[in-house]
This record gives sequence, structure tokens and C-alpha cells, in this order.
Amino acid sequence: MDEEVKSKVIGVDISIERTTYAIVDIRGNILAEDSFVTSDYSDANEYVTALSERLYEMMEANGGYEKVRSIGISAPSVSSVTGCITNAANLQWKGEIPLAALVRDRMGMAVAVGNDAHVAALGEYTYGSAHGMKDFIIISLGVGVGSCFFSQGREHVGTGGFAGEFGHCCVVADGRECGCGNKGCLESYVGANGVVRTAKDLMLESDEPSLLRDIDKLTPRLIYECCEKGDALAIETFRQTGNKLGLGLANYASLINPQAIILTGGISHAGKYLLEPCRESFEKHVFPNMRGKVKIVVSRMDNRERDVLGAAALAWEVPEYSLFK
Amino acid sequence: MDEEVKSKVIGVDISIERTTYAIVDIRGNILAEDSFVTSDYSDANEYVTALSERLYEMMEANGGYEKVRSIGISAPSVSSVTGCITNAANLQWKGEIPLAALVRDRMGMAVAVGNDAHVAALGEYTYGSAHGMKDFIIISLGVGVGSCFFSQGREHVGTGGFAGEFGHCCVVADGRECGCGNKGCLESYVGANGVVRTAKDLMLESDEPSLLRDIDKLTPRLIYECCEKGDALAIETFRQTGNKLGLGLANYASLINPQAIILTGGISHAGKYLLEPCRESFEKHVFPNMRGKVKIVVSRMDNRERDVLGAAALAWEVPEYSLFK
Repeated sequence: MDEEVKSKVIGVDISIERTTYAIVDIRGNILAEDSFVTSDYSDANEYVTALSERLYEMMEANGGYEKVRSIGISAPSVSSVTGCITNAANLQWKGEIPLAALVRDRMGMAVAVGNDAHVAALGEYTYGSAHGMKDFIIISLGVGVGSCFFSQGREHVGTGGFAGEFGHCCVVADGRECGCGNKGCLESYVGANGVVRTAKDLMLESDEPSLLRDIDKLTPRLIYECCEKGDALAIETFRQTGNKLGLGLANYASLINPQAIILTGGISHAGKYLLEPCRESFEKHVFPNMRGKVKIVVSRMDNRERDVLGAAALAWEVPEYSLFK
Repeated sequence: MDEEVKSKVIGVDISIERTTYAIVDIRGNILAEDSFVTSDYSDANEYVTALSERLYEMMEANGGYEKVRSIGISAPSVSSVTGCITNAANLQWKGEIPLAALVRDRMGMAVAVGNDAHVAALGEYTYGSAHGMKDFIIISLGVGVGSCFFSQGREHVGTGGFAGEFGHCCVVADGRECGCGNKGCLESYVGANGVVRTAKDLMLESDEPSLLRDIDKLTPRLIYECCEKGDALAIETFRQTGNKLGLGLANYASLINPQAIILTGGISHAGKYLLEPCRESFEKHVFPNMRGKVKIVVSRMDNRERDVLGAAALAWEVPEYSLFK
């Protein structure tokens, strides 16, 4: 077989809501893309079977199986070392899911998996805001709060593949209960549910009128929209969120000394309401020698695109046989 | 000139109290060693002149200048990127001191400099408890609280060379004033002065009798000795210290996912009084997937030896011409 025909890879992004998959060429062009609802499959084996069938179909319709070199997958709480999803806080598959091995066995193709935050960092590094940087941190702000950092141009994965659990750094000793079981984790203040909880706490603490009080099911987006209308409680919600985020980022930066911190994910789009208090708190808390020297920027890449392209970049990194047993 | 005769390097450890310097062979044998009081020189130029004269003398007495390849220097608040000591909180030389360039110009020899915590990590990696590890954190607990971590077998230095400022991570929002100007830094609780302050606070808070009350000038060592005599306030002092340290280490580990954390420096010798509350707090706060998987150990290397040997290891890394302007 002619080796040179393997000019494509598959990138798969498994997020809590949707699974997006694409065929990507060596220049990062998305040749075909589709998605389905992740939570339609409560069983991980059934999920992998459905995913594999869809991948086969997409390959057949786009030049054939034999032109595809390997598969890269982004998923929450997955270890790039073991290839397994372990105790994912926000997925319905519990325990240990040997994701890389399951997909490899169905597809007969090398599979690389990466923690969603690591893959996002790879996407930013390869195609986005971090291009050309050697030392940077990327933060994903969504339901979960994840991160990844690069050390001298390489992603730091840690000994078990779990590095970057920024959302589970404690920012308030004995603070709010977190989904992980610990208390006072940053995620319990800055993750989507944490932001909503802060808004609810603020509404309970005062009688101040607020547009938030008329909303049935609060979300960070709806709170943001109230900020845009000048609502004081909504603005205070993001001020407190930014304050905690800035403190967490300052501690992170004092350890890593990055060129930049790149924010991604839904909550990063809360604009100045989040960023101004975040930067202020960051500069207050960061090690003085780094003050004024760390850029905090919001990624310009589309989330979906970054994650699929990052997964594709990961696919190019894996040897053409899989390391996972 | 025969290149092979350059079989030695010089390691210099500049600490707040003493400067130790040694000629070291390629196997890490210390062939000659001496030291002097750092604070005898209030001017950095005079200090470098005195150091250089001593290094020349030692080389002449031990096989000659031409057998020495390069010099490695460990110092506080120094950047391995710029070669400068910048705003050292605990040294009397203020502002920016171009240490690497000053020593190189006096000695006519390549000079590498490294932050004391980075050099200590290199010493542990080359000759100590971290030998063979790819991902580990080393913490120095003294007057200052420094750290360094290795990522995939390489030390992480950060974009400005200031990575690892663990002591200046905020553990109590708006907490104690720190020497760096920020508030609530870990160092203000866990550094030598922080430990003493905790003991003093505890004495003020209660009327409980304590051996500590009879001590004129408290030090962590004297507090430790009172622990050994069963003094409740002394034990409580280290319990609170260990509690804060464990929280800080848990956050650090959640980001790095290391195999081990190695504690060095005077305060690391407080034994179970520090370690037991530290480990308890660590396990309580670390990301659950890492619980029970990160070893926290006290280094078995002698501090002075580790730092001089680490500096010598650094000297081997530098090319035979210096990069600093």
C-alpha cells in the first residue's frame, strides 16, 4: 500500500452535550464534519459503536478508510497516559472507560486521546492565539473549569495525564461544595453553576430589585444579558466571578510564569464584566516580578473548531499503531 | 589547547547567609569547597570581586584555571533567562544585578545562573530523591518558600525565568502582609517568619501556659524543640503551618500531577509535627483522581551539598560561551 495516501486524520470532540467529528487534512482544513448528541448513549460501549459507524460512513463518503491515518479524540477527564476516561464528573459514563482502546478496536486504527483542556491548548497552539508561544496557559470556562499549560513548547500532561485541574484548586478554604467532592474549588465559583449560584446568593442577600429575579432558569448567558442592560446584581455576579478567577489565575501564573493566559469557553464571552475584575484581581495577587507582564486574552477561535482541530493535531502526533492496551 | 582537560566545573550557592563554592568533577565529587558570609558585601560589585578572587585562588590550588569548564550559580530571585537578580526580597542588593555577566566578565568563563529552587531541583534530579523522575515538584522551606517543578524530565523555568513562585501563591484572600508586598501569600504563613508569627498569634489568643512564652527570640527550630517536649502551642503552630502548606501543595499538585513532592530546607525538618497535618490537608484538598497517589517526602540530601552540586550540574549544561550580554 502506498503510505503517502494517508493524508487525513479524524478529529473527535466529545463534550457533555455534543460529539463533533470531522475529517481534517494536513493543513488543518476540515473536509467533512458532523455531530450527534452525546447523552443519547447512556452506555459507553453503545456510544463507541455509534461513533464508529458514523466515522466509517464519513470516511466512505470522503475518499475512503485507507486515506485516513489516525484518530484524535478530545474528552473530559480522560488521561492521555492510560487512554481511559476516569470518574468524569459531568459525563453519564461512570467509573473507568478505556476509550482509546474501545475506539481503536472498532476502527482498527491508531487512536490518541487527550483531556479536553489539553486538546484545546493544542488547537490554540497549532492554529490559534497561542501560535508561536512556548509557555502559555489555556483555561476553559464552561460547566467545568479546565486548563492546560505548555512548558517550553510542549504540553505538560503530568505523570498520570491529569495535569491542569485548575477548576479544582481550592480558592476558599472550606468554601462551597464542589461536584468533585472537595470544598472551595474554583469551579464551584467560576463554573457555569457557580456563576448562577453567586447570582442566587446575591439575590438572597439583598432586596435590591434586579432583572435576574424575573428569570426562571438562570444561566451565565442570561446573567450576561442583564449586565448589558445595566443590572447591578448581574454586574456584581460577574465581578465576584472575575475576582475569584483572577486570584486563581494569579496563583497559576506565579507557578508557571507564562507569556499569556488564553480564556476559552462560554463564560469567557462575558466580556468586560468578567475580564475587568479578573485582570484587577490578577494584578493584585500575582508575584510582583510578573505584574503587568502576563497577557490575559479571550481566544478568537470558535470553540467547536478549536476542539476538533486540536483533536486532529493530536491524531498526527500518535504513531500509526496505538500504545493503549 | 586540549579540550579534554576541562574536566571540572565550579558550583556556587549564594544564599542569604552564606556563599558556598566548590570545584566539582564530572561524577559529582566535590574536590574543594569553601564559604564566606554573603552579607559582608553590601555592594554587589564588591561581592562579585571577592567571590572571583576566591574562585581563582581555589582553582590555582586545585589543578589550575584551565581545567575548569564553566561556572554554575544558584541565587535567590535570579532569572536563568536574563542572568539577573531582580528585586530579591531577602538579599541586600536591590534593583537588578546582572550577576551572570558580572561573574563571566571577571572570570572569563561561561556562567549559568539559576533560581535557588530550580538549582535545588536539579541537584535532587541529578543526585537525590528525584533521580529518575520525570514529573516532580521540589519545595524549599526556609526564610523564603520557593519551588521548582520538572515537566517530562526538564525543569520548567517559565517565559521570564521566574516560574515556581510557590511562596507567593495566595492562600488566604486579604490575609497576612507578605514581604513581596502582596497579602495572604503562602510564605507569610509557612516561611520561617510566618511560623514564628503563627506562634506569637497563638500566644496572644490564649492564656495557655507554653514553653514558647519563655523564649526570647523564637525560631522554627526552637518551636520544633518545644514540640518534642510536648508543648501544645508549639504543636498547634506546626499544625496550622502544615495545614496551609498542605492546601498550597494540593493546588500545586492539581495543576502539575507530579509523581512526588520533595520538601527541602530548614522547616522541612520539623518532622511529623509539620508532615502529618500537611499530608492530611493535602489529601483533603487535592483533585480526587490524584488522592493517595502523590508522595510527599523530605529530601535526604544535605542542603548545602544539594545546592552546590545542583549549581555544578547547571554549569555542565551551559555552552562554553555565555549567553548573557
